Amino acid sequence: MKTGLALLGCGTVGTAVAEMLLAEKELLQERSGQSLELKHILVRNRRRKRAVKVPSRLWTTNPSDIWADPTVDVVVELIGGLEPARTLALAALRAGKHLVTANKHLLAVHGAELFAAAMKARRAVCFEASCGGAIPIIMALTRGLVANDIQRVIGIVNGTCNYILTEMSASQRTYADALAEAQAAGYAEADPTLDVNGTDSAHKLAILAALAFGAKVSFSHIEVSGIHGLQDQDLKYGRELGYVCKLLAIAEKSDHGISLRVHPTFLDQKQLLANVNGAFNAISVSGHAAGQTIYYGRGAGPRPTASAVIADIVEASMGTAAMVFAGLPLLTRRKSMPIVPTRDILSRNYLRMTALDVPGVMHHITGILGQQGISIAAVVQHESSVGQYVPLVVITHEARDGAVTDAVKKIDRLRCIRGHTVRIRIMEP
Amino acid sequence: MKTGLALLGCGTVGTAVAEMLLAEKELLQERSGQSLELKHILVRNRRRKRAVKVPSRLWTTNPSDIWADPTVDVVVELIGGLEPARTLALAALRAGKHLVTANKHLLAVHGAELFAAAMKARRAVCFEASCGGAIPIIMALTRGLVANDIQRVIGIVNGTCNYILTEMSASQRTYADALAEAQAAGYAEADPTLDVNGTDSAHKLAILAALAFGAKVSFSHIEVSGIHGLQDQDLKYGRELGYVCKLLAIAEKSDHGISLRVHPTFLDQKQLLANVNGAFNAISVSGHAAGQTIYYGRGAGPRPTASAVIADIVEASMGTAAMVFAGLPLLTRRKSMPIVPTRDILSRNYLRMTALDVPGVMHHITGILGQQGISIAAVVQHESSVGQYVPLVVITHEARDGAVTDAVKKIDRLRCIRGHTVRIRIMEP
Repeated sequence: MKTGLALLGCGTVGTAVAEMLLAEKELLQERSGQSLELKHILVRNRRRKRAVKVPSRLWTTNPSDIWADPTVDVVVELIGGLEPARTLALAALRAGKHLVTANKHLLAVHGAELFAAAMKARRAVCFEASCGGAIPIIMALTRGLVANDIQRVIGIVNGTCNYILTEMSASQRTYADALAEAQAAGYAEADPTLDVNGTDSAHKLAILAALAFGAKVSFSHIEVSGIHGLQDQDLKYGRELGYVCKLLAIAEKSDHGISLRVHPTFLDQKQLLANVNGAFNAISVSGHAAGQTIYYGRGAGPRPTASAVIADIVEASMGTAAMVFAGLPLLTRRKSMPIVPTRDILSRNYLRMTALDVPGVMHHITGILGQQGISIAAVVQHESSVGQYVPLVVITHEARDGAVTDAVKKIDRLRCIRGHTVRIRIMEP
Repeated sequence: MKTGLALLGCGTVGTAVAEMLLAEKELLQERSGQSLELKHILVRNRRRKRAVKVPSRLWTTNPSDIWADPTVDVVVELIGGLEPARTLALAALRAGKHLVTANKHLLAVHGAELFAAAMKARRAVCFEASCGGAIPIIMALTRGLVANDIQRVIGIVNGTCNYILTEMSASQRTYADALAEAQAAGYAEADPTLDVNGTDSAHKLAILAALAFGAKVSFSHIEVSGIHGLQDQDLKYGRELGYVCKLLAIAEKSDHGISLRVHPTFLDQKQLLANVNGAFNAISVSGHAAGQTIYYGRGAGPRPTASAVIADIVEASMGTAAMVFAGLPLLTRRKSMPIVPTRDILSRNYLRMTALDVPGVMHHITGILGQQGISIAAVVQHESSVGQYVPLVVITHEARDGAVTDAVKKIDRLRCIRGHTVRIRIMEP
């Protein structure tokens, strides 16, 4: 069967998709059974020099050319960001085209609107490439694990952060050096803000959690902290204690509702997720029947992303995407579920204070922790001279997150403490 | 939509599937949008006491009841083995039912026949549960990675073997002790032959390789060696060299064709697959666009298997399974591809000889290896007394597999060598 395609945008991913569709048409037909015909590529500027060689009739600056072309079945949005991506995506659906998108930001913020438009038009929204790059995690979560009551999704879903953390750990670099290295290697943008502050991970978590729980999840429900404040000494202390630091996106379901958070986390170094290194991503999904499953692969990059985009195009072309979209309540008939604030979650913590080594410091700190009902599992303080500021590391037993937050605030107000306490949650296997 | 189901067989997996369909009907409907109605369970003996409580009208000993029932849309074969599973599966397809099966043995041997019958009847064969238990690897390979020229599939696909190898490594037990432990823990059958000799892994590899390459793969193309000959001292020497031993099922494509083999393999301990422990499975798939992706989870057990079986039932029920089956050439229009014998594969090797410590031994051995064009990367021989038999470990550089086989035969004929040389292939990252 022939399927007509239009691309919106032709950046690095768009270029890779166009190249694969044109140069590897035969391979794609042989493997998918579908004949995928690229009909239009929407760009802002037709004159700009492009890395990909395509027949010049394909370039257009007018989206109406695409909506009006009855031979176009699938529109692939690869512009990124909210606008004009949102307006164009809605227009494509209204024009009766299936929508394939890699745009996690758009889905995290306007997913419900897009899905409603698709249902109305009896078309599909496919978004395998929005999370985990080449990893077919959307398919696994919605279909492979469809029989499961999903209890937990834990993801390393930002390759930039994982690359930086791996470099900081393996080569004992500072955050700034590791970031510079990531930028030089092409794993971090010139402005890495949305990656390192956890926003990108939170966009992906909003998508994954909604699918996992069949729940209405808003991006604003997610409590986010990034890796930009991390110091190499904390990773070093963690290592001494057998921990590896990863930026995790965590969605959990309990009897009280769902909790959603992104934060740097210490993992036991023997855990599989702790061994996911460099720019790779991995997502762990725990279901009541399947138990834990993990999906690992390249979370970014033009060709890995193109792999997922084309998988979506094939599903749209075969006709399965529309059936899934109409059939699965996880996509379009989501429930409202209460959000459990991070304050109410239980976890162990790594706390590093910079304390003046004078008599009574430990007494003050343990007093504050005790008042909040937090018990101490371990303390690391290397020998020093009285009267100097020294790092003091405390590992807590499982405690209510909010109690630890409050305790840290009080500790930071002590006269014998300098600066802010560094806090990293610890996740047990 | 209502879908009528019939189960063939009610062993441990059948019981888990029936239980989920009955006790978790609401959850399944909520997540899948499908109403799955269990109509019949075919058993040999209606009178036998069963672990699952189902209305007694469901039990039948007559398959014709199922074929003749127009409300049955999907037949789930969970008998296992070749007959009567094959005959019943073919009859189900001819009666116009979709077939869901977890039977890797049946698929590895009679897959082509079943698929042809399904094409003729315009029905689907779904077999997510045949490989990797709960892991949605069939979906990932055929659909998530559909845009990829797959170069390599490497799997830890037998939980029994992986449990035994993990126990041997972690607790430094002998093979016999670890097997007894696996049997006590329910991870090995009373007769574990088909697991430990690699046959079960080879069945799964036949299925995975056919899908990965879209190739006609016969089970007889696979060269298989199991873990039953492994000695704890070899795992110990491997550990000293930084290696972990896993039973790997390997399918690779080169310009010359495809190679298919199952054998114990040393992996660098830092590799992710080396950290897959206990009864878990993991499958690594490398594609030209996606790069490496890995899928991890429980490879066996009633509920993980039921998770995959029900995912298949839902795809059949939604109507997507039939579209995929008709659409994807990977399933039903496979190419003949030349098979590259293992002899022609290049790999590094661990060789352990039991050598008499007399002058000239090393000279003999290195002479034989040199004649075969095999160069030595490392030698480990601990100090001993002249005239005693001692273990001598040689790590080779990359060499043609057949050359190493021939060299080992010659070495074993030396008068200064006792017994057989132990050989374990080494796989580099």
